[in-house]
Amino acid sequence: MLNRVRSAVAHLVSSGGAPPPRPKSPDLSNAPSAQPAVPPEAPRSPPARAGSGSSAPAKTVEARASFSRPTFLQLSPGGLRRADDHAGRAVQSPPDTGRRLPWSTGYAEVINAGKSRHNEDQACCEVVYVEGRRSVSGVPREPSRGQGLCFYYWGLFDGHAGGGAAEMASRLLHRHIREQLKDLSCWSSQKEVTHESLVVGAIENAFQFMDEQMAQERRGHQVEGGCCALVVVYLLGKVYVANAGDSRAIIVRNGEIIPMSREFTPETERQRLQLLGFLKPELLGGEFTHLEFPRRIQPKELGQRMLYRDQNMTGWAYKKIELEDLRFPLVCGEGKKARVMATIGVTRGLGDHNLKVCSSTLPIKPFLSCFPEVRVYDLTQYEHCPDDVLVLGTDGLWDVTSDCEVAATVDRVLSAYEPNDPSRYTALAQALVLGARGTPRDRGWRLPNNKLGSGDDISVFVIPLGGPGSYS
Amino acid sequence: MLNRVRSAVAHLVSSGGAPPPRPKSPDLSNAPSAQPAVPPEAPRSPPARAGSGSSAPAKTVEARASFSRPTFLQLSPGGLRRADDHAGRAVQSPPDTGRRLPWSTGYAEVINAGKSRHNEDQACCEVVYVEGRRSVSGVPREPSRGQGLCFYYWGLFDGHAGGGAAEMASRLLHRHIREQLKDLSCWSSQKEVTHESLVVGAIENAFQFMDEQMAQERRGHQVEGGCCALVVVYLLGKVYVANAGDSRAIIVRNGEIIPMSREFTPETERQRLQLLGFLKPELLGGEFTHLEFPRRIQPKELGQRMLYRDQNMTGWAYKKIELEDLRFPLVCGEGKKARVMATIGVTRGLGDHNLKVCSSTLPIKPFLSCFPEVRVYDLTQYEHCPDDVLVLGTDGLWDVTSDCEVAATVDRVLSAYEPNDPSRYTALAQALVLGARGTPRDRGWRLPNNKLGSGDDISVFVIPLGGPGSYS
Repeated sequence: MLNRVRSAVAHLVSSGGAPPPRPKSPDLSNAPSAQPAVPPEAPRSPPARAGSGSSAPAKTVEARASFSRPTFLQLSPGGLRRADDHAGRAVQSPPDTGRRLPWSTGYAEVINAGKSRHNEDQACCEVVYVEGRRSVSGVPREPSRGQGLCFYYWGLFDGHAGGGAAEMASRLLHRHIREQLKDLSCWSSQKEVTHESLVVGAIENAFQFMDEQMAQERRGHQVEGGCCALVVVYLLGKVYVANAGDSRAIIVRNGEIIPMSREFTPETERQRLQLLGFLKPELLGGEFTHLEFPRRIQPKELGQRMLYRDQNMTGWAYKKIELEDLRFPLVCGEGKKARVMATIGVTRGLGDHNLKVCSSTLPIKPFLSCFPEVRVYDLTQYEHCPDDVLVLGTDGLWDVTSDCEVAATVDRVLSAYEPNDPSRYTALAQALVLGARGTPRDRGWRLPNNKLGSGDDISVFVIPLGGPGSYS
Repeated sequence: MLNRVRSAVAHLVSSGGAPPPRPKSPDLSNAPSAQPAVPPEAPRSPPARAGSGSSAPAKTVEARASFSRPTFLQLSPGGLRRADDHAGRAVQSPPDTGRRLPWSTGYAEVINAGKSRHNEDQACCEVVYVEGRRSVSGVPREPSRGQGLCFYYWGLFDGHAGGGAAEMASRLLHRHIREQLKDLSCWSSQKEVTHESLVVGAIENAFQFMDEQMAQERRGHQVEGGCCALVVVYLLGKVYVANAGDSRAIIVRNGEIIPMSREFTPETERQRLQLLGFLKPELLGGEFTHLEFPRRIQPKELGQRMLYRDQNMTGWAYKKIELEDLRFPLVCGEGKKARVMATIGVTRGLGDHNLKVCSSTLPIKPFLSCFPEVRVYDLTQYEHCPDDVLVLGTDGLWDVTSDCEVAATVDRVLSAYEPNDPSRYTALAQALVLGARGTPRDRGWRLPNNKLGSGDDISVFVIPLGGPGSYS
């Protein structure tokens, strides 16, 4: 079955993209080579993607969506072409004009080295006004600006198997959050329910509604693929960091690193996935086993004792091999090669409603969660200086850069600028992206230490926590 | 339904025991008072317990089991009676003879203030020899002492709804661990599978086998009730702390506190419980809803908007009240009053196979997990001094004593003894138990600050990590 699943995987991402350096989209590393890898200079015809229904309308959407970059980059058609060039991989940032992103936020991005035809990352940065909703008791309340509130919003969306989900999320997720936050105006203190827990609940529910909207719109072939989502909301003195996927956020404060997210992968979510397979065996379609083994079991090993882990275990123990254990494991592979159902390497995010194990109708979506983990950071509990920043990056950054290396770059770059120079945060974002991308050398993009740089899309926000114009 | 469930709860623990100060066994605090509370000086007839089938044989078992105390206490019949006296609540420790517990471990315990007829805590401390098993490949291997290994073992078992499960676990769990560890002799390094993860897996599986054995033996009316289990295994330089329930273990090292366990309660395991109710709604029997609300919903509120949390959420959001939301919540109550199905306040442990929501055949066991969380502490990574200790306590200790207070007592008591005096750890265990029990005053057991002491059974192990005779 191994080959069948891998063929299925190859089919899923057929006709476009070289094998990804860190594929969250299906793993091609051992797939049959019937589909030639497309070098960076390949023709620009958008690839047909699995999960988008008939390919014609999907192609139209893909062609439109995949060329879009965040509006705050203000790219001209020529700039858009340069941003889309896999050979040059020019780092993109908002133009250095008087009009800056809120809080003088820094941003930089670069396209992948040929992993997919277009940059499948998307980003959004907005100030959002929330009007109050009618009160809970049913008595209508006249909306007025006095009853509303504002939140600051940053989002990074790392797409896979197409750019549609990331593009849609970057346009709409903050609107879902706005909609959910309207209920805040109805809040009056109740047992256990704090203001903070309502904001967390609003963000959690917004992710769910966004995912449901994608499910509905896919029927009109509007959305293909899926995306990780890493979102920051600033509201009333608190920073909420919501993560669903394998992007990462850290705060660097006075040189200290404060993790603000964790990654959701088949390895970190093994027990959740196995529990689901155990409680709902029909989701495994008779093709997979929820048990984990250190290696694939051979039929001749039936009846022998073998190490295994189930959904309750963090350690390993022995069991006697039975017929069911010969099935393909629900979770397999290690590190960046870990996969659910031999297909996908990230276990939370938005979209992926059509993702299936190929040569099979078995859907993978039931194992994926659209719910983020939300961490809260109280900005008022500490006096921040202009060098204290919140760094958000897609996995393109973190695959080749440690938290400590990011902190060192924060220190190096910011100390080279005046504390009140608002361009320092963009310079820092650019330095982080460049440091992860490397330079073209020795048949690849390489870092100064000659290790491979990231061939993935890389996107970085640098949000100053005590800089000029912060939370004004 | 509230009353019905509470009546059910009253029935579950009928005919014995005053309302517990912190009942993990069913909550009587609002139950009808048809059953008079039994004062400490009440007749000693053992209470009949729900879940033990017909009461006659259960009584026999209860009478036998409930008087048993750990053998290392070496209690005479007179000593056993004093240990069983709710009025005096004498602190019990092993006699100060030449024969000490391994590692000069300190131990102390005291019976409750009338919460249950007998002390439902149990304890065990052993050195266990493991013979090697036949090798995995099926080739028999002659067992010899050279192929075996030894582990040190400490266990605390906090029983509820009867002492049978705790008594059985204290006699047998280390034997299940020994059985599982026999596989260690077959171990040869495999991908990802470390020696440590095999010990963790062995302990996890031993808990499961212990629980299954209780399920089988309850049919012969051998086991009633359930118990929390907190277990320490020392093997080859590492300390494994396995916890299923609401006991707690901390290391106090050079004054610093290192938590070695966490508690499993309806509050800490809310999302696991809700997920199970969501995925397997038949387990809710049409009587409970997996959703959580800040307060009980009234029928007249149908159609209105109300705050809720589901299995995916850590925050709160609003939903429109539907008919199903009027059911009793699966998880309700706060803090020490939190309950699963209005019945039990602890969500992991051994036993409880017969526990049901009363006036209903709805079993609660499917929501309880017998699997421990295992934390590992490498003793070789730090040079320990004689004042560094691992403290294990049942919730009777921790309900009224913070980690910091325990650390202060560690410092105060140990500094009063010579470092090489092996009796210092027993003195420390006694001080901790006395400090949690308090003295009888003002209609209750009171602490020096006049707050109520713990009326629960209290049991404490103090394991020296660098004392005389440690890991010899």
